[in-house]
Amino acid sequence: MVRRARGDRFMSSETARVEAFSDGVFAIAITLLVLEFKVPARGSGVLSFQLLRQWPYYLSFVSSFAFIGIMWINHHRMFTHIRKSNNVLLHLNLLLLLGVTFVPFPTSVIAVHLGGPDQRAAAILFNATYVLIAILFNLLWRYASSSRAGLLSKDVDTAAVARITRQYSFGPVLYMICLGLVWVNVLASLVMNLLLACYFALSPSPNHGER
Amino acid sequence: MVRRARGDRFMSSETARVEAFSDGVFAIAITLLVLEFKVPARGSGVLSFQLLRQWPYYLSFVSSFAFIGIMWINHHRMFTHIRKSNNVLLHLNLLLLLGVTFVPFPTSVIAVHLGGPDQRAAAILFNATYVLIAILFNLLWRYASSSRAGLLSKDVDTAAVARITRQYSFGPVLYMICLGLVWVNVLASLVMNLLLACYFALSPSPNHGER
Amino acid sequence: MVRRARGDRFMSSETARVEAFSDGVFAIAITLLVLEFKVPARGSGVLSFQLLRQWPYYLSFVSSFAFIGIMWINHHRMFTHIRKSNNVLLHLNLLLLLGVTFVPFPTSVIAVHLGGPDQRAAAILFNATYVLIAILFNLLWRYASSSRAGLLSKDVDTAAVARITRQYSFGPVLYMICLGLVWVNVLASLVMNLLLACYFALSPSPNHGER
Amino acid sequence: MVRRARGDRFMSSETARVEAFSDGVFAIAITLLVLEFKVPARGSGVLSFQLLRQWPYYLSFVSSFAFIGIMWINHHRMFTHIRKSNNVLLHLNLLLLLGVTFVPFPTSVIAVHLGGPDQRAAAILFNATYVLIAILFNLLWRYASSSRAGLLSKDVDTAAVARITRQYSFGPVLYMICLGLVWVNVLASLVMNLLLACYFALSPSPNHGER
Repeated sequence: MVRRARGDRFMSSETARVEAFSDGVFAIAITLLVLEFKVPARGSGVLSFQLLRQWPYYLSFVSSFAFIGIMWINHHRMFTHIRKSNNVLLHLNLLLLLGVTFVPFPTSVIAVHLGGPDQRAAAILFNATYVLIAILFNLLWRYASSSRAGLLSKDVDTAAVARITRQYSFGPVLYMICLGLVWVNVLASLVMNLLLACYFALSPSPNHGER
Repeated sequence: MVRRARGDRFMSSETARVEAFSDGVFAIAITLLVLEFKVPARGSGVLSFQLLRQWPYYLSFVSSFAFIGIMWINHHRMFTHIRKSNNVLLHLNLLLLLGVTFVPFPTSVIAVHLGGPDQRAAAILFNATYVLIAILFNLLWRYASSSRAGLLSKDVDTAAVARITRQYSFGPVLYMICLGLVWVNVLASLVMNLLLACYFALSPSPNHGER
Repeated sequence: MVRRARGDRFMSSETARVEAFSDGVFAIAITLLVLEFKVPARGSGVLSFQLLRQWPYYLSFVSSFAFIGIMWINHHRMFTHIRKSNNVLLHLNLLLLLGVTFVPFPTSVIAVHLGGPDQRAAAILFNATYVLIAILFNLLWRYASSSRAGLLSKDVDTAAVARITRQYSFGPVLYMICLGLVWVNVLASLVMNLLLACYFALSPSPNHGER
Repeated sequence: MVRRARGDRFMSSETARVEAFSDGVFAIAITLLVLEFKVPARGSGVLSFQLLRQWPYYLSFVSSFAFIGIMWINHHRMFTHIRKSNNVLLHLNLLLLLGVTFVPFPTSVIAVHLGGPDQRAAAILFNATYVLIAILFNLLWRYASSSRAGLLSKDVDTAAVARITRQYSFGPVLYMICLGLVWVNVLASLVMNLLLACYFALSPSPNHGER
């Protein structure tokens, strides 16, 4: 969104508007979740029971929020290292955002169907979405951090870059295992999915803030 | 969203993208409120009565708007002092935003059920949300302003920081009293909640704009 | 959103985050309008007729878009002159945004009820909203441009500021006349409202872009 | 959103806030698409069938996302060359955004009616929307890049500007052919529309990122 001053003492960032657009998408995706809640009408029963009965929506709200929030943190982390932008990056970023905006749907499906006769189908949709997103995160990062693309800053912290690459490379495999677990035990697959979210929430670089 | 020029004469801010993302969430949460309104269809009765009958929605719209707006002002105020960002700050900020995006729901519930047989349950949900948000504001500010985290600017106005700390520290206790008041008198608890919003709307630092 | 470099050769702007938040609110308010459209289901009748029957929604969409767009341009114009921010400005800006986010509702009401038996009530709601918004624009601009508040840039174009002040001062009166016209002729009041929008769309300062 | 430092060594950009507002509109338009999905209720049938039956919504989601994403990339590309802003640019940009926010509607209509008796009417609405948007892109770019308006940067890459002008000039004609094709073969017109999207997704300037 901001064209940077150019001069030998100043770094230029071409990624400002990509980040602004992505921030917008993340912010909206995370905020739309509250639209799921329905206010029980007066006289439709005891309010506290009505509110408690909506627990799958609360579960879905909190977990979608956590998932999208963690993806935003990871997006932010990648773009602290990316300094230049090109057409390929813009397209890969759009693909990743497509995955991000889709997240509320499988999360709602699993929240509604958990414990029901169709929980397996719901869990397949849910875990498959994360396999896809993990692949898209890898595609974006692999491309952006490749020396061929040359999009990283020159004075980039190569150790931090390598740590992200290493952490992300496990993503698709781990989420594929999650997906496989669905046929063994639906609940176990969801618990493993949550644990993976925690794994990606933690920065591989303890000093990522120190640019 | 913006990588800052680095040089001895320029301050660097790592919080730009955190603020941009948060701004997005606040802006969306505050704008989604209008979706509550329903346009009365033609021929469904006298329009002015139909419009007036929606008064709980107007009340809910204006008060949710005020609450979220005041939280945005407070978020803005905190981040005028915060200069660096780290992983813990990102997570605490996400938790706070979770609270912010939830606000329209309890506000709608209270607007619909005020004066009805279930107004106590609605008021409990409403006030409990604010106890939680007050705690989250304290967590974020306490962490960010701690010398251990070292996220404040070096030339920060320590008096202003202390004033915010002092004001925020009363929040959870005061909202807890609000919540307790529900069992005494529902209306009194809501009036006290509104007065607290006014209290937090007022800057503890009269010259917060003068950075 | 952006803390500006401070130095004698650089202007500092404290309004960046206020503008970012306001931009978000305007952008969302203007984009939510499309949610009004309903896709006719298959087999519910001849599609082209079904689409044409939705004309009040198209009218409402285009005019709400124009109204909010013009308000954004005016907001943008004011903030090209405002350099500092304080608590009062933040609150007045929030009040103005409250008016902006409300706009889609009266616009939908008038689109649905125009030509019906309740068109007068709809037109009162519609024009009263604009009286209110015109007052809020004046409040914000009068405060921000007052020498007492001292929020304008030092090297501000005083002629441009005076032109905005003059143009805005007519707003509340003109919209009040619009509102009064409702009791004479509903259609005439709406046509005058549209003409007023055009009047405010045109910059009072032909070189406002040349800062 | 950001007032730029002025000085001989620094370029000033007046377009920051126009871009921020536009980014917001694009981000919201692209994220609202997910609201179309409906979570099948428990016990309403076999979940996997229910999910598969929603395929027109998935198609509509992915293609609207792609269309809006590609328009964002083009908007971004234009504004990497535009340095100044004026009233005419603001209005032309608003008109273009009006087209952008409308896109989800015709896309949903075509997704629901493809293969049905009304697919021709749906395809006319769909292709006509793109004729309009192609014209609006041309209007904005022709104006902004005209030497009369003088909005481009002084050190602009004139070859890149010419390439964009050339590519865009084909847009309205090509989309008009698409629209004409509807009367010959609906499916062929949609396939051609998709191919055109790919054409505009590809940068006419291979080094557009290298400013």
